[in-house]
Amino acid sequence: MPSQSTIDLQNARKTVSFDPKVLNRLLNEGSRDGEMRKRVVEVLESEEVFAKGKRAYMSRKERMAAGLRISRRLMELCDEKGWDYTEYLEALASADEPLGLNLHEVAFQPVIAAQCSDEQQAIWLPKCMNHEILGCYMQTELGHGSNVQQLETTSTYDPSTEEFVLNSPTVSSTKWWIGGLGILATHGVVQARLFLKGRDMGPHLFLVQLRSLEDHSLMPGIEAGEIGPKVHGAMAAVDNGWARFSSVRIPRSQMLARFAHVSSDGTYSKPPHDKLAYGGMIFIRAQMIGSLAWRLAKAVTISTRYLHTRRQFANPELQKGEAGYGVERQVITYPGVYMRLLPQISRAYVFITAGKDMADLYHSMASQLSSGDASLLAETHAVSSGLKTYVSAGVVDGVENVRRAMGGHGFLDASGVGRIFANELPSVTYEGDNYILHLQVARSALKSLSTFFATPTTTLSPSSAYLSVLHPLPSLPLAVFAPSSFLSPALQLQLISLRASFGLARLARLVQSGKKWSELSHECVEVSKGVTEAFLVRRMLEAVEGQAGLLSRGAGKKEQEVLRTLYILHTIESALPSLLEFGILAPSPPSLDPSTTSSSLGALEALREQLSSLAKQLLPEMVGLVDAFGFGDWELDSAVGRYDGEPYETMLARAKKDLDANVGNVEARKTM
Amino acid sequence: MPSQSTIDLQNARKTVSFDPKVLNRLLNEGSRDGEMRKRVVEVLESEEVFAKGKRAYMSRKERMAAGLRISRRLMELCDEKGWDYTEYLEALASADEPLGLNLHEVAFQPVIAAQCSDEQQAIWLPKCMNHEILGCYMQTELGHGSNVQQLETTSTYDPSTEEFVLNSPTVSSTKWWIGGLGILATHGVVQARLFLKGRDMGPHLFLVQLRSLEDHSLMPGIEAGEIGPKVHGAMAAVDNGWARFSSVRIPRSQMLARFAHVSSDGTYSKPPHDKLAYGGMIFIRAQMIGSLAWRLAKAVTISTRYLHTRRQFANPELQKGEAGYGVERQVITYPGVYMRLLPQISRAYVFITAGKDMADLYHSMASQLSSGDASLLAETHAVSSGLKTYVSAGVVDGVENVRRAMGGHGFLDASGVGRIFANELPSVTYEGDNYILHLQVARSALKSLSTFFATPTTTLSPSSAYLSVLHPLPSLPLAVFAPSSFLSPALQLQLISLRASFGLARLARLVQSGKKWSELSHECVEVSKGVTEAFLVRRMLEAVEGQAGLLSRGAGKKEQEVLRTLYILHTIESALPSLLEFGILAPSPPSLDPSTTSSSLGALEALREQLSSLAKQLLPEMVGLVDAFGFGDWELDSAVGRYDGEPYETMLARAKKDLDANVGNVEARKTM
Repeated sequence: MPSQSTIDLQNARKTVSFDPKVLNRLLNEGSRDGEMRKRVVEVLESEEVFAKGKRAYMSRKERMAAGLRISRRLMELCDEKGWDYTEYLEALASADEPLGLNLHEVAFQPVIAAQCSDEQQAIWLPKCMNHEILGCYMQTELGHGSNVQQLETTSTYDPSTEEFVLNSPTVSSTKWWIGGLGILATHGVVQARLFLKGRDMGPHLFLVQLRSLEDHSLMPGIEAGEIGPKVHGAMAAVDNGWARFSSVRIPRSQMLARFAHVSSDGTYSKPPHDKLAYGGMIFIRAQMIGSLAWRLAKAVTISTRYLHTRRQFANPELQKGEAGYGVERQVITYPGVYMRLLPQISRAYVFITAGKDMADLYHSMASQLSSGDASLLAETHAVSSGLKTYVSAGVVDGVENVRRAMGGHGFLDASGVGRIFANELPSVTYEGDNYILHLQVARSALKSLSTFFATPTTTLSPSSAYLSVLHPLPSLPLAVFAPSSFLSPALQLQLISLRASFGLARLARLVQSGKKWSELSHECVEVSKGVTEAFLVRRMLEAVEGQAGLLSRGAGKKEQEVLRTLYILHTIESALPSLLEFGILAPSPPSLDPSTTSSSLGALEALREQLSSLAKQLLPEMVGLVDAFGFGDWELDSAVGRYDGEPYETMLARAKKDLDANVGNVEARKTM
Repeated sequence: MPSQSTIDLQNARKTVSFDPKVLNRLLNEGSRDGEMRKRVVEVLESEEVFAKGKRAYMSRKERMAAGLRISRRLMELCDEKGWDYTEYLEALASADEPLGLNLHEVAFQPVIAAQCSDEQQAIWLPKCMNHEILGCYMQTELGHGSNVQQLETTSTYDPSTEEFVLNSPTVSSTKWWIGGLGILATHGVVQARLFLKGRDMGPHLFLVQLRSLEDHSLMPGIEAGEIGPKVHGAMAAVDNGWARFSSVRIPRSQMLARFAHVSSDGTYSKPPHDKLAYGGMIFIRAQMIGSLAWRLAKAVTISTRYLHTRRQFANPELQKGEAGYGVERQVITYPGVYMRLLPQISRAYVFITAGKDMADLYHSMASQLSSGDASLLAETHAVSSGLKTYVSAGVVDGVENVRRAMGGHGFLDASGVGRIFANELPSVTYEGDNYILHLQVARSALKSLSTFFATPTTTLSPSSAYLSVLHPLPSLPLAVFAPSSFLSPALQLQLISLRASFGLARLARLVQSGKKWSELSHECVEVSKGVTEAFLVRRMLEAVEGQAGLLSRGAGKKEQEVLRTLYILHTIESALPSLLEFGILAPSPPSLDPSTTSSSLGALEALREQLSSLAKQLLPEMVGLVDAFGFGDWELDSAVGRYDGEPYETMLARAKKDLDANVGNVEARKTM
């Protein structure tokens, strides 16, 4: 007989009004191949080297060794199974263990592809592709991360030998944090200040061999190693490393020369656009969006399923004899619970779409860029920076929210949500610290505003389209009466665009009033968030109108529309402080007289009422919405989020299996 | 020659206008003995068994074994050094490694002391004190945590043998999460439903021997073990365990009988107050406040020092030739950085005071309670619940905030802040899930409101004193013009009290309008936060007025007042959404016309201006304010937060020392 928890999930699936498999195909469309993914996962699942259960028990050294075995096996499988590069990347992601090898694929190789001249690519790309060399991207130093212009590693051209000579002149110039450098890499692309004839030409990229291809020993003049464990035991199998250079010589041909070039006599050719060297960073950011979205999807799958199986507190309103009396209530049915989960499910859906958009935009820009056309660079940089901050912060926050919603058992590693948080947490800091990126997004928005004020008829780019709400400015506060008025897409767009515009206008005035830029970081963060939300809400509404995106078609069309509206209204709810501060919505003080019931709702109560009503519509669909993400039990690796439930049985069985893990300690305890 | 970072910290200490040592004594006063603490720490520091550096490299089993060695050594040291119980507890805390042993001290022994009859205490307390037995407190089950009334473990009285028979009737009745149960404990206090003559008397407490005192083997009928790793590798040396009972018999004398009692023939005597059994939980919550506060203090110490030594970006406003041109700026001097740190420093100070208050309140209640007087129980429960949710959430959030402010290096375990977060994270869930406690706090506040409306002349308890702001209600919105008007304590108290009262009034009206309690969790959370903040702000202002607390006296008096005002204004800033929504403060829309500069500040801009001005006053005092917490380098165990700075040198030295930790893996890599 199935357990109560299995029955609870089966019943929840009966109320779902769409086919999660069809929706899964739509979600994957344009970004991942569900069938291929399934095939690849089946291979991993069948091999012990990919087993996940023991990782949390391992020492750091064991975990690293296990990671190296995974890396080697993945490369072997390419040959054995005839996997193409896409299949291999899918396997790398599905192994669910961040590795130094990932950095070869997402950081080193793309830089080689984007920054090398055609001749250099012809030599190095094949070696990258067949893993003859494994590389890392060496930018960050102990003393400098965000501030690339102040990197201290030097690369001095010696025309007598036509070589560059690399040095680490200070402690703070030590390369640091570099993923893959600690143990794995044979080569690195090093950001170093180019010195030509005594002149500092600023940071450039150099390909440096770090270790022998014979015996993997460090090359002369190079010191390198691992930097040590990360917080929360996160990314324990990634060999983040450090390196120092002492007169390391590389041939002239190993300066990455797509855009900048040094001739044999030391003459410098300038890149056509001084930001071209940052294309690589934009690539990493662009692919982070979709990747982060799917991590959130995994976390909400676990949490949603578990909270359907957990029961707590009988309904005190029922009388003895009434149906359901004494039976405890499914925790998911508490508004305090589903109102925490649903916004995160909606975020996962919206971010998956945003990830596809971002990938499209990046590819358009990259193909232009490779022919020297940088016209899309500013827009792509602005959008990718805004989305990176917004999605990384949203995913980290969302994962932790759904973990806390799970109560005590969410704190058990076997639940499977905690490790998602730990591994994604650094995304708010790496590839551009969010705080710094917020400033850049705000600066770019200020430019758009001043262009707009100067020539209001100018065509607005997608990232600044929200400004159109200012012409003509509606009369404020907006009149919003019934909860259902918040269902109007026009009103939604107006609210979120006004909020972005007013925030930006305030920043502009503060700048104009003589405030220093560095004093305005609070306002910059708000502006960055506001304009990114305006961008996303507009995109989602365009998707509704059938212009683009998966959400307007096929399976669960209605539910996805409701889900997207919930996302938008939840976003508006989070923006309430600004909406009130800017006088866009009117306040609604509650009456203090306990004897009267007010007849009309304030705008905010109406908004919350509508949100609550949308959530109730989605409650019977929740398990379907997470099933549609299509994760198998092996992928989730969760004792409490399995497709068939049985959280308690699984937790207890795992604990019993682990008894022998502490035999030695039980013995030790006896002698205490 | 000292390094730049050491000079930066030395210079920062020169600007401090008070003596951190004197302030340290005041902070410790009434809660901890700084001199004794120092003595104890010196002992730990001198013994290899307490070394912290290798923990992050260990397997789970090694970490647990190391924890057992620490436990044994601490107990030995009591004899060797003649430590009294307070010194021993200080050592246990200073070992900086959560252990199963902690649960013996903070959970098991207090329950024995509070819930046993005098005769029982005479037998068991000495065994607890001299560690002849080690115990755990067994409440949570797989199926039930917050909902004590639905616990499933049974304890059936058998009058024929005068024994209780314990059973675990279902999988979900398995005791779970119990700290100290996995390996360490010989005894447990078990929450189980008492069955007398076939009648279910609800949960009661029973003392059960779990393991033999001879060979530590499990007693007949008991299955038990460890539940497995926690998220983020947190509390890896705590043996959280599970247990199942199969007809386990204990003598009648082992039902904890201070308040409830079963006679030999199975007749039940009722406890005088049905909540008396929860005294133990209140104790744990009460002591959590101060303990959490000091953890935040440690995190801000590390972050503040590091951010004084980190330099990033030269000032672009300086011209070549001007002093400071080209020199990078200390990161701490960016408003975006110090405005993130200072609120957390102020929280640490305020929470330390709140911890002392809470301890005082608990002791008053406990001494009343031991003589059967429960008159303080409701107030103590309300205050401890409110503070527990508020302080745990605030500390977890604060620690993570200051870690993120550190940028990339904050993600390195060696920085020392991440592990504070991981270990404190469960505090939002254990000892009462914050979400559930919020509901209880809100319910208690509703009672106070209805009493107040019925008889406004009633004397308000400290936890509901904020309601006095309603008589007479000031005219709204409040007129606030200049930034300095926010310095008025009367205005501060009015704002925060109005916000609490209006939020509560809205909740009351929603309840009255027929909304179900379970639909109101969002409002309950807001109410709980609002009334707790009102309570804290009032307490802090009382401290100013010289009525109580350390903040009004001695060292750094002015700085502490500024710090407390910053805390209050930061709290008001966080409450802005409600202050605007309730019409307590007026909105301040920015002008959209870029050519004009508005002449007057809105209330919100004035508030931010005042906050910023307070922060600037505190900037030169920051290092002094964290030095005053008095943590030594060994206690901080941070590569980047040392008293003398040198973060880069220390990080690199640690990494070089760790080279051998991966020798085997480097070998493995060679054969890849």
